[in-house]
Amino acid sequence: MAVGVGEMPALGRVAGIALGTAAAGIRKAGRRDLVIVQCAEGTTAAAVFTQSHFAAPPVLLAKAHLAACAPRALLINTGYANAATGDLGRRDAEECCAALARHLQCRPEEILPFSTGVIGERLPVARLIGGLPAALAASSEDGWADAAFGIMTTDTVPKAAVHELLLDGTPVRIVGIAKGSGMIHPDMATMLGFIATDAEIPSPVLQAALRQAVKTTFNAISVDGDTSTNDAVVVLATGRSGARVPRLEAAAFAPFVAALEGVCRTLAQLIVRDGEGATKFVQVDVTGARSESEARVVADTIAKSPLVKTALFAADPNWGRILMAVGRAPIAPIDPARVVVTLNGVRVFRGGAVDPDYREERGQEALAREDVTIGVDLGQGEARATVYTCDFSYDYVRINGSYRT
Amino acid sequence: MAVGVGEMPALGRVAGIALGTAAAGIRKAGRRDLVIVQCAEGTTAAAVFTQSHFAAPPVLLAKAHLAACAPRALLINTGYANAATGDLGRRDAEECCAALARHLQCRPEEILPFSTGVIGERLPVARLIGGLPAALAASSEDGWADAAFGIMTTDTVPKAAVHELLLDGTPVRIVGIAKGSGMIHPDMATMLGFIATDAEIPSPVLQAALRQAVKTTFNAISVDGDTSTNDAVVVLATGRSGARVPRLEAAAFAPFVAALEGVCRTLAQLIVRDGEGATKFVQVDVTGARSESEARVVADTIAKSPLVKTALFAADPNWGRILMAVGRAPIAPIDPARVVVTLNGVRVFRGGAVDPDYREERGQEALAREDVTIGVDLGQGEARATVYTCDFSYDYVRINGSYRT
Repeated sequence: MAVGVGEMPALGRVAGIALGTAAAGIRKAGRRDLVIVQCAEGTTAAAVFTQSHFAAPPVLLAKAHLAACAPRALLINTGYANAATGDLGRRDAEECCAALARHLQCRPEEILPFSTGVIGERLPVARLIGGLPAALAASSEDGWADAAFGIMTTDTVPKAAVHELLLDGTPVRIVGIAKGSGMIHPDMATMLGFIATDAEIPSPVLQAALRQAVKTTFNAISVDGDTSTNDAVVVLATGRSGARVPRLEAAAFAPFVAALEGVCRTLAQLIVRDGEGATKFVQVDVTGARSESEARVVADTIAKSPLVKTALFAADPNWGRILMAVGRAPIAPIDPARVVVTLNGVRVFRGGAVDPDYREERGQEALAREDVTIGVDLGQGEARATVYTCDFSYDYVRINGSYRT
Repeated sequence: MAVGVGEMPALGRVAGIALGTAAAGIRKAGRRDLVIVQCAEGTTAAAVFTQSHFAAPPVLLAKAHLAACAPRALLINTGYANAATGDLGRRDAEECCAALARHLQCRPEEILPFSTGVIGERLPVARLIGGLPAALAASSEDGWADAAFGIMTTDTVPKAAVHELLLDGTPVRIVGIAKGSGMIHPDMATMLGFIATDAEIPSPVLQAALRQAVKTTFNAISVDGDTSTNDAVVVLATGRSGARVPRLEAAAFAPFVAALEGVCRTLAQLIVRDGEGATKFVQVDVTGARSESEARVVADTIAKSPLVKTALFAADPNWGRILMAVGRAPIAPIDPARVVVTLNGVRVFRGGAVDPDYREERGQEALAREDVTIGVDLGQGEARATVYTCDFSYDYVRINGSYRT
């Protein structure tokens, strides 16, 4: 079960965005597995996609469509990822886009397809297309919560976030939903995020805002170090609030990015809290690095270490494994005597050895909590980075050993 | 339990090497935890050590001693790694070397210390020193098998290998023992290897032979991607057989390296077969790469992927996860249409999609075996690399969650 996750907040609406969800029987009968997000004319869009060498056909198609024109709808299915399916997979994705375009009386290029689920098997196109009328009939500006359920796969909780702000005195809303709990790692995880705002923002400005917002949020989480063929985060801006962020230099840009970052951080943390088999939410703060990238690689090495993660699962303050991970991080030599390690603020290591004031009970207390912050000060410089991760449990093995059965 | 491991072979002797093992109660009472390897005068030595930024005091001391003079004895303890113990840890290691030197009437610099076990806690020096007389009393040229047991930690089987060859018509023996089953990854793992030969080889030649032998053996195994603060492989050459490998250019060099590589490969594979919680032995063969390093990084990414490893544990031919891992490998772009993936020879993926002749039953049959070879032909060039790994099971989590209790 997800670590420390409360009720989903009331999401409200984003003027110009309607969402419809259906159970199309794509892989399992009776499960909500199809979501259509329609956006009003004039909506702009931006997106970031997986960096995988094997980016799936729907990813390649969504990229091409987004480059060609503004979208009218997103078409999202779970059950099958339509990845590693070659030319046939491409045609399947095109056929689905064409079918939805006929319903919406728009061009296929105005549809962005997203698929998540099992890799390597064909998408059951007929079932997906057969579900379109039901999803369109259910379409509503109040459809955010249903859509949050509709994009879940191994997720145990729906993931949603909402942020409101004033831009030049005009109220603006940003609402987002996401799915993901395994194969999670930067650039991008097995993760989909769909965010919309009623601000008016030209695509290039929106793209810049999204790039900035994902850097410390979606690109700073790791469940298992694995990344997928299908990941994407999309943001849509309908402009219906009347508030505008016309340029990167506009005064409204920074507060908009901060709000977008807030939504992305909430969604990214929800993904980690719902990490497959997770029992702990872990924040790794690396400070005192010579560069941000050095801080990042050290944080990432700790966050990915199976030995650190199994110790966290056992609530065992085996801080030697944190040192082990720092020790093998691919960075320039460091002086161990300058490194300080803390667990939820309890200092365990400094001056090259265990802190003389450290007591095992204090480490155990620190790790008894569901939320754990591992602090590593490298003592080499001023740069820092934070990565979010979870522990590694029996259930991770169970979930991923039985995923297809 | 170790995957497909038979009885330990008869190890015999290496003239000039005597091994003594004792239960010194270093961490647990009644457990063999202390090994002394004595070598005759004139023995040469070579070693490779962990690349960790936090190399433990005994590692630093062994390096310094080896640089200063030829060793007379190796002093090995389990229970505590004497790592992350700072200056006090250094003094502890020095004290142990000095104590053994007094017994052997040699200089402390002639002792190479090796420790493995829990990180961050002080070595119980008095108990270790108290165990020296018993270990020395037990010392014998027939002590190899006892020593193989004496260096075990979480290992479930002792690990030993023997290789005999003729150099210029003279019989030569190479015998090795190793320990390690978790925190295993190249450069080096939580792993100790002690090898001896009765050939006569100057240290620099022996060092070159060892470097070459570890590259495709100890440095090509991965259990969990984690590496330790204490790893080392040492090789001793007593010269008692009369056979000589005087120079790198000598005709005897290549056959000696091949034999040493054979011993190292057997030991390295035993470590993987005894990987914590392992139920499968997995060989990852990457071919068709543009460079050996590219082949290595792809093989390594597959071998480290928790999602690939949990699928192997479940004997689930979820080859999409292999593609996922190749897809996220940090290499230059590749054309998915040229990639071919096989499981124990069964072709599952080619031409950018599932092989049309592939049937799920054949993949299941392939993965039902204990030994699995994952083949990935990148179709980009001629270079290749092999990495050995194991699967990821419930027991890995159990063993590493309860290691200190």
